[in-house]
Amino acid sequence: MKIGIVGIGYWGPNLLRNLNENKKFKVRYICDLSRAKLNNISLSDDNIIKTTNIKDLLSDKNLEAVFISTPVNTHFKIAKSCLEANKHVFIEKPLSDSKQRCLALIELAEKKSLSLFVDHTFLYSPAVMKIKKISQKKDFGKFIYYDSTRINLGLIQNDINVLWDLAVHDISILNYLCEEKPKKVSCVGHKYISSKPETAAYLTLKYSSNFIAHINVNWLSPVKIRKTILGGSRKMIVYNDLEPSDKLTLYDKGIDVIKKEKSSINLIKYKVGDTIVPSLKIKEALSQAISDFYQTIVNKNFICKSDGLKGLEVVDILEAANKSMKLEGKPINI
Amino acid sequence: MKIGIVGIGYWGPNLLRNLNENKKFKVRYICDLSRAKLNNISLSDDNIIKTTNIKDLLSDKNLEAVFISTPVNTHFKIAKSCLEANKHVFIEKPLSDSKQRCLALIELAEKKSLSLFVDHTFLYSPAVMKIKKISQKKDFGKFIYYDSTRINLGLIQNDINVLWDLAVHDISILNYLCEEKPKKVSCVGHKYISSKPETAAYLTLKYSSNFIAHINVNWLSPVKIRKTILGGSRKMIVYNDLEPSDKLTLYDKGIDVIKKEKSSINLIKYKVGDTIVPSLKIKEALSQAISDFYQTIVNKNFICKSDGLKGLEVVDILEAANKSMKLEGKPINI
Amino acid sequence: MKIGIVGIGYWGPNLLRNLNENKKFKVRYICDLSRAKLNNISLSDDNIIKTTNIKDLLSDKNLEAVFISTPVNTHFKIAKSCLEANKHVFIEKPLSDSKQRCLALIELAEKKSLSLFVDHTFLYSPAVMKIKKISQKKDFGKFIYYDSTRINLGLIQNDINVLWDLAVHDISILNYLCEEKPKKVSCVGHKYISSKPETAAYLTLKYSSNFIAHINVNWLSPVKIRKTILGGSRKMIVYNDLEPSDKLTLYDKGIDVIKKEKSSINLIKYKVGDTIVPSLKIKEALSQAISDFYQTIVNKNFICKSDGLKGLEVVDILEAANKSMKLEGKPINI
Amino acid sequence: MKIGIVGIGYWGPNLLRNLNENKKFKVRYICDLSRAKLNNISLSDDNIIKTTNIKDLLSDKNLEAVFISTPVNTHFKIAKSCLEANKHVFIEKPLSDSKQRCLALIELAEKKSLSLFVDHTFLYSPAVMKIKKISQKKDFGKFIYYDSTRINLGLIQNDINVLWDLAVHDISILNYLCEEKPKKVSCVGHKYISSKPETAAYLTLKYSSNFIAHINVNWLSPVKIRKTILGGSRKMIVYNDLEPSDKLTLYDKGIDVIKKEKSSINLIKYKVGDTIVPSLKIKEALSQAISDFYQTIVNKNFICKSDGLKGLEVVDILEAANKSMKLEGKPINI
Repeated sequence: MKIGIVGIGYWGPNLLRNLNENKKFKVRYICDLSRAKLNNISLSDDNIIKTTNIKDLLSDKNLEAVFISTPVNTHFKIAKSCLEANKHVFIEKPLSDSKQRCLALIELAEKKSLSLFVDHTFLYSPAVMKIKKISQKKDFGKFIYYDSTRINLGLIQNDINVLWDLAVHDISILNYLCEEKPKKVSCVGHKYISSKPETAAYLTLKYSSNFIAHINVNWLSPVKIRKTILGGSRKMIVYNDLEPSDKLTLYDKGIDVIKKEKSSINLIKYKVGDTIVPSLKIKEALSQAISDFYQTIVNKNFICKSDGLKGLEVVDILEAANKSMKLEGKPINI
Repeated sequence: MKIGIVGIGYWGPNLLRNLNENKKFKVRYICDLSRAKLNNISLSDDNIIKTTNIKDLLSDKNLEAVFISTPVNTHFKIAKSCLEANKHVFIEKPLSDSKQRCLALIELAEKKSLSLFVDHTFLYSPAVMKIKKISQKKDFGKFIYYDSTRINLGLIQNDINVLWDLAVHDISILNYLCEEKPKKVSCVGHKYISSKPETAAYLTLKYSSNFIAHINVNWLSPVKIRKTILGGSRKMIVYNDLEPSDKLTLYDKGIDVIKKEKSSINLIKYKVGDTIVPSLKIKEALSQAISDFYQTIVNKNFICKSDGLKGLEVVDILEAANKSMKLEGKPINI
Repeated sequence: MKIGIVGIGYWGPNLLRNLNENKKFKVRYICDLSRAKLNNISLSDDNIIKTTNIKDLLSDKNLEAVFISTPVNTHFKIAKSCLEANKHVFIEKPLSDSKQRCLALIELAEKKSLSLFVDHTFLYSPAVMKIKKISQKKDFGKFIYYDSTRINLGLIQNDINVLWDLAVHDISILNYLCEEKPKKVSCVGHKYISSKPETAAYLTLKYSSNFIAHINVNWLSPVKIRKTILGGSRKMIVYNDLEPSDKLTLYDKGIDVIKKEKSSINLIKYKVGDTIVPSLKIKEALSQAISDFYQTIVNKNFICKSDGLKGLEVVDILEAANKSMKLEGKPINI
Repeated sequence: MKIGIVGIGYWGPNLLRNLNENKKFKVRYICDLSRAKLNNISLSDDNIIKTTNIKDLLSDKNLEAVFISTPVNTHFKIAKSCLEANKHVFIEKPLSDSKQRCLALIELAEKKSLSLFVDHTFLYSPAVMKIKKISQKKDFGKFIYYDSTRINLGLIQNDINVLWDLAVHDISILNYLCEEKPKKVSCVGHKYISSKPETAAYLTLKYSSNFIAHINVNWLSPVKIRKTILGGSRKMIVYNDLEPSDKLTLYDKGIDVIKKEKSSINLIKYKVGDTIVPSLKIKEALSQAISDFYQTIVNKNFICKSDGLKGLEVVDILEAANKSMKLEGKPINI
């Protein structure tokens, strides 16, 4: 299946490397507005065409799919033109910069019977897939809370705030792990430079089931932290993505509430059992995402965990968070 | 100076030990409603009287001060009766369970010319005092943000929620480090057990100067974390209170915003210099707090960083946080 | 059972505290050559006599046992006089400063039917007892190696080198964990100050079964490390004694050697399974050691893991290590 | 300058990548006995020839240098034939498998006026270069000890033992940091599989100046550790190579020995000052090594820290360590 890559800046080279190792896809075009970036890419295959003009891809009838890795504010326009030219679309997260535009892309893809895949890469990481597996078991109990800290000294971006860059990961993970969707969002943000987007944000999601999620994202931290706790009523997981291999720790810790008959008093018992560090497969998430994208194309019944609809659900929450942020933390219903 | 201790549960023995080592104070009474707790205390001094009746202390004309370490909801009543009996008062944090009651105690102490000292112990810890010193220097720059995580598997209390148990520390530290007071508070809380107080809370404080503070407190974490970041515009400090000695790390990291003349575009330059772990004095905070309490008694001009007024300012913010929490994060003006 | 404590310097107060909590023993004397140290001790029991003269203890017919916590070079003389005065002896590690003196004490205790207990405290720590339990299971495999690093910025002692202060712990743990005794010792030491004992030593023990142990001890490290690896052929344990609770990590890692029939080539397969952090009882080792000492007195059939003989076996290895150290690492048979 | 690469297994691709980014060298050949390995390499330059026959390189008059990255036991033969064919040689560490063979290569290179460069990569790492700079300053004091732990679950090699794979790094670093060479070596090794080389070794080097170095290498550790302490009489450095950026920590800790006049007693004072984590340049060591190799070719007066002679000095110590290991730790003079 012949494909093209649009955008070869920060993430594009990872796409290229993984596509080169994938046997189903054959890269034919690499497209970027910057000639310098194109020149930087060294190719092992002479048949790949480097171009600054996306029309070269759109007009090639043999090209079946496009991988888009461009700034978020260009997503809608580029994805739309690809779908219109009958190409399947694999696009970096978030799907687009508004709920409405996401909907438009989903509808267009459906109408054309094309695949629209959003690269929420974490959903394909061995760590997150293991968390899903562990947390769905009965002995994990009910979900109590999700608490994630995703901070570092990062590039201050011009077009999107820190929510759309970092919290987007946690929101996609939450939607993946948890059956229900949040009903209320409150978010407080902070701008370090008044003319730039928010550099820090504290986001809280409330769910009908009494589950709560809290996400702390910051581009101005002197230390890099990627730490997520998923607290269950029977077990709890800590996920430290910076650990080279021992990313997950499963605690057999928690509180047993013992309801006494005919009494309003709840007795509480603390429990502490062995802790387990599950071994994880060493597998690049992006490679698995690309495989799943292929499945969505060849198998129309394939259930994809990161399709356009999933991408929309993430943007829906991001939009609500932005709204709450403007109202200084006022809760917004979703 | 003869003194009494009221409440010999969790924190009381620390008071006793430090008072035994202090040469200005002489413990004469230990008072607790529980005879069992009193019996557990072994004494090196036969002149100390154990009693379950606080009136023994109040009626002793020679007793000059009382150290109160009882549940928060008893603070007001006990402190009031001590002040009325003309005793100086050293009381555990928070000063009381409402702003109004704090005010009443402060007024009573003033009228009687008695000392009212709130034991916000962290203000006397070598780490926090060092942060104060470092952050006041010009080369630290302006305060950008304060971000604190204070979580562990803790005792679920019946009378107070996790804010009044854990966030109280951060609020007192913030008020100490920062000249200005927050203008707005938003807080989202979470109850694990519906009949109990909140076990987790996410609190955000906004300041007029664009400084922001975020506090994450949780009684249901499988791991214990006590980590605070103070981000300045020139330097940043990470304070890890669980480290036995290297509690502080001072980063020469940050972002330089370069304003270009006749241009609306700000250039950004990242800077990374050496990191310093300042050596800290090994000194128990409580011992220093007790010394300062003594100073407030003997020297009426002594400026105390933890007097009744400071205690009130903390409770003021806690009350506002409680209010926002009931409104699911709606911002509350202070 | 009435007992006395001799030596109330660094470790003595721990003995006192644990003996106060033990219901079988009743402290009657605290003896130290230093009047100042005696004065520093605050007592809850007026019946305890403080004395600088050990003869007060030896001549008291009602005194049944003595706990000795004095410098190593005084162990022999004090323990001998106690045994001669018909007191059971609980003595800090190492038992004495030479194999010969250890033997003399053991013989004297046997002749008099008295208990002689050496306080190799680590043998009673929940972590080491758990290692014993785990490593004896069949699925742990054969012992391959033991590798311990025990370094910090420590007091440079005048009478003993770093082996007798720090390596003594590892040797007692090794003798406890491992059925066999080492057959060969080689040790290289280092003196920072020529007039003082060795401040660093690297000790290697070889066993008949191909098991090997390596111990790295150093009084001049800027960082404190207490890390021990026990490598088995099927599983491996890492023991970090500085962790407040998660001291042990059990790895299901290793190498499977697959012997091929009719071939001299061994295939090797790496295996990596889940890692487990076993939960440990929170129990002070010293309290358990004191209980076992009591058992040795009242129950002559009690099998004690830290009696005089075990103490002798440790000193035997320390002597051989000293000898190898003088010969710059030449292996010494035991 | 046209060059060839011999050996494209584990390390070879790193050479290729760095050579592609270097503007002085132009890769013309990639040679490996394995056609499969050659096929795996994707090339951006069509002018590069893949070959399984080294003679293609040797006979190309325009080829000026060869980069050798093959098993140690092939080093001598390949390097010799390259030098004889008048090619400059860049070779992976260690230079060869015996002192004698190293000498022969050095002499051959000298006779032919060719460069012989040994890739002791660590000598070009920003961390080790910073240690050199810090430790040479007067306020670091005299070197007391070097203590390195370099362990992990590693490939058990067939041709070389763990010393030649891992300790080789420490020996090259030691020779680089320290003016003097060791006078005595003692080493104890351990074979897990009798038919294979040693999988663990404990190496101690003694110097005339009272400096001592200890190196712990192990292929069978469940955890990966790369930690080196350099203890000076005034300051101490800890180097943790696994840290992504904060690899070095400089401690202002140590012991002051105060000599009293007319007294044989030395007073000791412990000092503890601020700790510093120096910021390091982010620069790949291999790229800098390749630059230095180029310098040795074009500038005959260039002083190279990793030339044949330096490579020989490392192998000299490795040979002595092997000898001591066979004698179970007996010290060997160098």
